[in-house]
Amino acid sequence: MSKKNKHTSALSEQKGVSDPEMTNISSIKNIRNKRRSQPSAEDLISGILKGDVTALSRSITLIESTSSTHLEKANAIIKGCLPYANKSIRIGITGVPGVGKSTFIEAFGNHLTQLNKKVAVLAVDPSSSLTKGSILGDKTRMETLVKNTNAFIRPSASGDSLGGVARKTRETIILCEAAGFDTIIIETVGVGQSETAVHSMVDFFLLLKLAGAGDELQGIKRGIIEMADTIAINKADGDNLKQAKLAKVEFNRALHLYPNKDSNWQPKVTLCSALENEGIDAIWELILAYVNTTSTNGYFENKRQEQNKFWLLQTIEERLKSDFFKQAKIKEALKKQIVLIEAGKTTPFAAADYLLSLS
Amino acid sequence: MSKKNKHTSALSEQKGVSDPEMTNISSIKNIRNKRRSQPSAEDLISGILKGDVTALSRSITLIESTSSTHLEKANAIIKGCLPYANKSIRIGITGVPGVGKSTFIEAFGNHLTQLNKKVAVLAVDPSSSLTKGSILGDKTRMETLVKNTNAFIRPSASGDSLGGVARKTRETIILCEAAGFDTIIIETVGVGQSETAVHSMVDFFLLLKLAGAGDELQGIKRGIIEMADTIAINKADGDNLKQAKLAKVEFNRALHLYPNKDSNWQPKVTLCSALENEGIDAIWELILAYVNTTSTNGYFENKRQEQNKFWLLQTIEERLKSDFFKQAKIKEALKKQIVLIEAGKTTPFAAADYLLSLS
Repeated sequence: MSKKNKHTSALSEQKGVSDPEMTNISSIKNIRNKRRSQPSAEDLISGILKGDVTALSRSITLIESTSSTHLEKANAIIKGCLPYANKSIRIGITGVPGVGKSTFIEAFGNHLTQLNKKVAVLAVDPSSSLTKGSILGDKTRMETLVKNTNAFIRPSASGDSLGGVARKTRETIILCEAAGFDTIIIETVGVGQSETAVHSMVDFFLLLKLAGAGDELQGIKRGIIEMADTIAINKADGDNLKQAKLAKVEFNRALHLYPNKDSNWQPKVTLCSALENEGIDAIWELILAYVNTTSTNGYFENKRQEQNKFWLLQTIEERLKSDFFKQAKIKEALKKQIVLIEAGKTTPFAAADYLLSLS
Repeated sequence: MSKKNKHTSALSEQKGVSDPEMTNISSIKNIRNKRRSQPSAEDLISGILKGDVTALSRSITLIESTSSTHLEKANAIIKGCLPYANKSIRIGITGVPGVGKSTFIEAFGNHLTQLNKKVAVLAVDPSSSLTKGSILGDKTRMETLVKNTNAFIRPSASGDSLGGVARKTRETIILCEAAGFDTIIIETVGVGQSETAVHSMVDFFLLLKLAGAGDELQGIKRGIIEMADTIAINKADGDNLKQAKLAKVEFNRALHLYPNKDSNWQPKVTLCSALENEGIDAIWELILAYVNTTSTNGYFENKRQEQNKFWLLQTIEERLKSDFFKQAKIKEALKKQIVLIEAGKTTPFAAADYLLSLS
């Protein structure tokens, strides 16, 4: 069975093979490749600051990783980039599927790069972690923007929770800004609370609409119309144009029912056709006017600080909850308390007091 | 100065006064009175179960107290009442100030007691703790119901937070039910999240509206119309009647835009005049129809269990937050981290991680 039994006699010893060289050339190659594929945090930071898109992409991958060693490295990179961040206009874009978001972002992004802007396009799509899809996954939907050297497109990070996805996107913004991208576009699709999350990380919120789509009630109910700094009615071309003009009047009337915003900015309604590249420049002009108004009255900077505080508290609250409920003893006791509540033997409040006393 | 100096000689000793009797009659009276005013938890429970309104009122006062000894006693009373609770219809009533809530509740309550119902009227009004007022404080607004022996009216508990007020109201419901009240009415005024809190503790949610008040957008925005099981257009009398009928058509149209409810109950719109006692009986018939539908399809019981779970989790989350943020070291470190965030020296996420590591 063992080799020992096979070669008991010294006579049967086979011809010796010379030892391998101490310095194995292919090993060295492997290590070199490995080092090249895992640059240090310092290397990545200096790459990002030079505007190197490969360093940026690799760093974002570290941010999106769930490994704890990656996390440490990602945090070092974010810290290194932080002093160079913050110098951009962050624009949120939302709209129901079919409104033409991809076509719009492509036309809008190309318009901006023609104005010598550097544009990063990110996405917050909490559904992508479930469906394994991503609203920006299919880059072919933005054919020309993908090839544009002044544009950087990154699909949505996946994650267990909207909070997790949002954190990764927020941190990615910092890296993109440090890499010199001066216009950050964050796309989201109308799923769950994703608009609220995006609204909490951008300076300007653009709502894309279609004429006569009849989803106004949804928009009002979910507070999306209230969040919009501008409503752009897309596909305002050909036979649609007349209806789009009517919709503009309607939305203007709806917007006037809301109280004035703290920004002192009166939300605008505008028409555009991403397909025919109409009205795209006007939207950019509106954004510049917004930045001008809110920078002058201090709202722009103030909002960013409020957003920071929001994310600070939000992150703490989420972690407090998940740290509490993930404890094995709490999981078990929770089940038992729910049974007692259902049997009318305890109240939700007494059960809560008891569970909190266990921790 | 001292007495010693004044009476140095035994000769100056004054005539002795006989010792007081060992059993001081007035003391005994005091102790007896005190005992009478502080009955034991057992006494209060048996009083409540007999339907004694004084025992009920005293117990609710214990629930509302912030003293920890009262809290312990209150918890014992709730536990004792729990097996006898749950047997009522819990009705939430909301509407903006001026809609005629008090007049409506008075007419509705009197109608129910004529049907041999026992009616408890509670309130959730988180604003009352700030203004020191209470929406039910002015009992004179319900003159006849106050005198009705089959009705029990209790003003809103005060509290630091909506969660605190809601908890006290939820626990008060248990006591009222144990005392034999079979219809619990919970009034709230359209302030902050109070409607959502009330919706989470009742079986049936009634929204009072006025014709042409123009607050539909607010109702839709804040999700109140969506919560309503019935919308009653009040003050549908005299010159208002025509407009009220038009409003009924409008609200019916609006309600049809919402998806079907899990309860399988299609929300109704009805007209009433609390002042002229018109349409009050029809609302009670609607509530009975609702209870019948939802008891048959299991939704009624299921909703109560879901509400219990909601309050369990809600209470835990609130306590986790308040326990964390009330720590002196966290308060101090939080301030410092916010300064660092504002200076762009850390991110909200890194600051959150740091603060959580301190706890």
